[in-house]
Amino acid sequence: MSTDTLILKDQFPGLAGGWHYLDTAATAQKPQAVIDATTAALGRDYATVHRGVYARSAEMTLAFEAARRKVAGFLGGAEDEIVFTRGATEAINLVAQTWGVTNLRRGDRVLLSTLEHHSNIVPWQLLRDRIGIEIDVCPLTADGRIDLDAAAAMLTEAHKLVALAHVSNVLGSVLDVRRAADLAHGVGALLLVDGCQAAPRLALDMAALQCDFYVFSAHKLYGPTAIGALWARKAILDAMPPWHGGGSMIDRVTFAKTTYAPAPQRFEAGTPAIVEAIALGAAIDWLQDVGLARAEAHERDLAAVLRAELRARNDVTVFGPDDALGIVSFALDGVHPHDLGTILDEEGVAIRAGHHCAQPLMDHLGVPATARASFGLYSDESDIAALLKGIERTRRIFG
Amino acid sequence: MSTDTLILKDQFPGLAGGWHYLDTAATAQKPQAVIDATTAALGRDYATVHRGVYARSAEMTLAFEAARRKVAGFLGGAEDEIVFTRGATEAINLVAQTWGVTNLRRGDRVLLSTLEHHSNIVPWQLLRDRIGIEIDVCPLTADGRIDLDAAAAMLTEAHKLVALAHVSNVLGSVLDVRRAADLAHGVGALLLVDGCQAAPRLALDMAALQCDFYVFSAHKLYGPTAIGALWARKAILDAMPPWHGGGSMIDRVTFAKTTYAPAPQRFEAGTPAIVEAIALGAAIDWLQDVGLARAEAHERDLAAVLRAELRARNDVTVFGPDDALGIVSFALDGVHPHDLGTILDEEGVAIRAGHHCAQPLMDHLGVPATARASFGLYSDESDIAALLKGIERTRRIFG
Repeated sequence: MSTDTLILKDQFPGLAGGWHYLDTAATAQKPQAVIDATTAALGRDYATVHRGVYARSAEMTLAFEAARRKVAGFLGGAEDEIVFTRGATEAINLVAQTWGVTNLRRGDRVLLSTLEHHSNIVPWQLLRDRIGIEIDVCPLTADGRIDLDAAAAMLTEAHKLVALAHVSNVLGSVLDVRRAADLAHGVGALLLVDGCQAAPRLALDMAALQCDFYVFSAHKLYGPTAIGALWARKAILDAMPPWHGGGSMIDRVTFAKTTYAPAPQRFEAGTPAIVEAIALGAAIDWLQDVGLARAEAHERDLAAVLRAELRARNDVTVFGPDDALGIVSFALDGVHPHDLGTILDEEGVAIRAGHHCAQPLMDHLGVPATARASFGLYSDESDIAALLKGIERTRRIFG
Repeated sequence: MSTDTLILKDQFPGLAGGWHYLDTAATAQKPQAVIDATTAALGRDYATVHRGVYARSAEMTLAFEAARRKVAGFLGGAEDEIVFTRGATEAINLVAQTWGVTNLRRGDRVLLSTLEHHSNIVPWQLLRDRIGIEIDVCPLTADGRIDLDAAAAMLTEAHKLVALAHVSNVLGSVLDVRRAADLAHGVGALLLVDGCQAAPRLALDMAALQCDFYVFSAHKLYGPTAIGALWARKAILDAMPPWHGGGSMIDRVTFAKTTYAPAPQRFEAGTPAIVEAIALGAAIDWLQDVGLARAEAHERDLAAVLRAELRARNDVTVFGPDDALGIVSFALDGVHPHDLGTILDEEGVAIRAGHHCAQPLMDHLGVPATARASFGLYSDESDIAALLKGIERTRRIFG
């Protein structure tokens, strides 16, 4: 594996100088292929889309829509089921403020889980404030998975939506999406899946998962900032009202009455993230060339190695299940995660220390913060060795 | 001026090969400085912002917040009055769905104008559908300016907002923003200004303009796609409720109750457009190095030259006022604008043909579409000559 990953490291200008980057769950470094796609789209090939009568604009439109097809292919969905958004956060807010406002009534219930990222909590709280829905919280198993047995017992006909993370951004635990979908559908609810941490690590197939909404962010998928996607079943998307008004999302505008374009364009007001969409397409090409099966195995192996190394110490608490995917949260006894992170930084090792936008999970774990190491396709055992060396140095400093 | 602009053309990889790009009002080509800033931010310097305990993330946060200060300086506003959005469209929707929903009641009135872009019409129509406001439409003068005398006669105490384009994206007419602000404030209304076409062409100073909201898109300002900004007076911004829920916009999240960060962070849920913000900062640096006074003179001069040349023909109708800024819409008798655009494309000249996301203005002009030539800092008289040659060829083809 190490030769393999060293070749991958060479493709990432952000890793030059031997930096041990273990914060891929926050955001992934970008391969040269994505940077090159961006440079070409911003420069040599640049033009607007959908509107130009000249050839360059027509070509840019083809490239932009090809990117939408790549996202569709990546998810196993249809092209017209893909809405480009700023990222997963905006995608969830879009669902809450269009599908939610249209389909939920006072007293209807939404089921979340204890381990959700704030981006899959706060949009539903804003909707609670707006229309009076109720939020239920599915607990976790002792090892940090969403407890679907508990979900089965909690779900009622009052539940209209279940919204869960596919892979926990703190614990690396993986949801059985198909079972969650069956449980949700069993009471007539829909299932929204936050795929931010899953999309870079697991082969996805909407038909197999049977969820109703799936969201991810490009910047965690080796792609650019400022873009992500919402996948939703076509019939659901078609029935959702517009959200943002503006150019490109309309059919015909008069001051008396405006009619709207069909989905997905109805949800893409204004000049889209042209360059970012094309760069996201390049990221998907790159990731598919590497292979999702290889990504999953790589992320499982590295997490298992790190978990075993940390467990071998008697001064470390490791959170999450043993089959965690790519993400390992832990605590070093007597050392605040921020202090650990700072000392590791001096050793050229970048981890994340904090609440990871998952304060309810921190409350559940009984800690204000964790240290988190997370892997990408460019990670290898040299990164783990550097992390362990840094932990040992921190131990010596703190005694 | 021609030597001067030839040097500028060399800075734009999108213009290589002598392309006569006259669609800058749709989107501007990017100088190498913006592309280089993007490449560095995506590669060598890449990390997330606001969260990392390691040095690279701290540096990226400084660069990101420096970009916010550059936007503030560019507009003559304060750093904490700048909200990064996807673009002007999202910025207007943000105002409608936060300030509008909070401050407007059924029966309250919003004044727009006949020449507004769809992005400054449809958000208010969606708000009309949601809460029952009324929309009034300020007419234009015969030469295509927003008629502020008419606005003065129309405004009443029922008007809570006036929302107008600073520079028309079709006609190039320039609004007297200060007078519009005084008129709006005279009845207790606020003024929102759509600055998409003004920001690349006029020195801006919020204190002098006295408006309450100002929005623009980076991609029209020689910057990247997928980012823009909302400026709003601090007191107004502070009183606006959150819009999208997620990471970074919160203070403390529990399932029982969530509290929110102060503005502008309250309006920036999720990982921001990190790379794009930094590239927007580079675009502003570039534009300020060229100089806004030079930009305005250049755009006025080229528009005046083209208007005079077109008027000298007896088969062209030219729309808009004689002091139009950078944008010239016209019709060639007996030739559909799309056909003209297609033939011009064969000559290496890119114009826009269509409704320019301003269908109510097309209805007012009595045409389904116009041909539009729009300039940027890289434009020069050679582009006008190529356009005129192409028009002449089109004339010969169509007879």
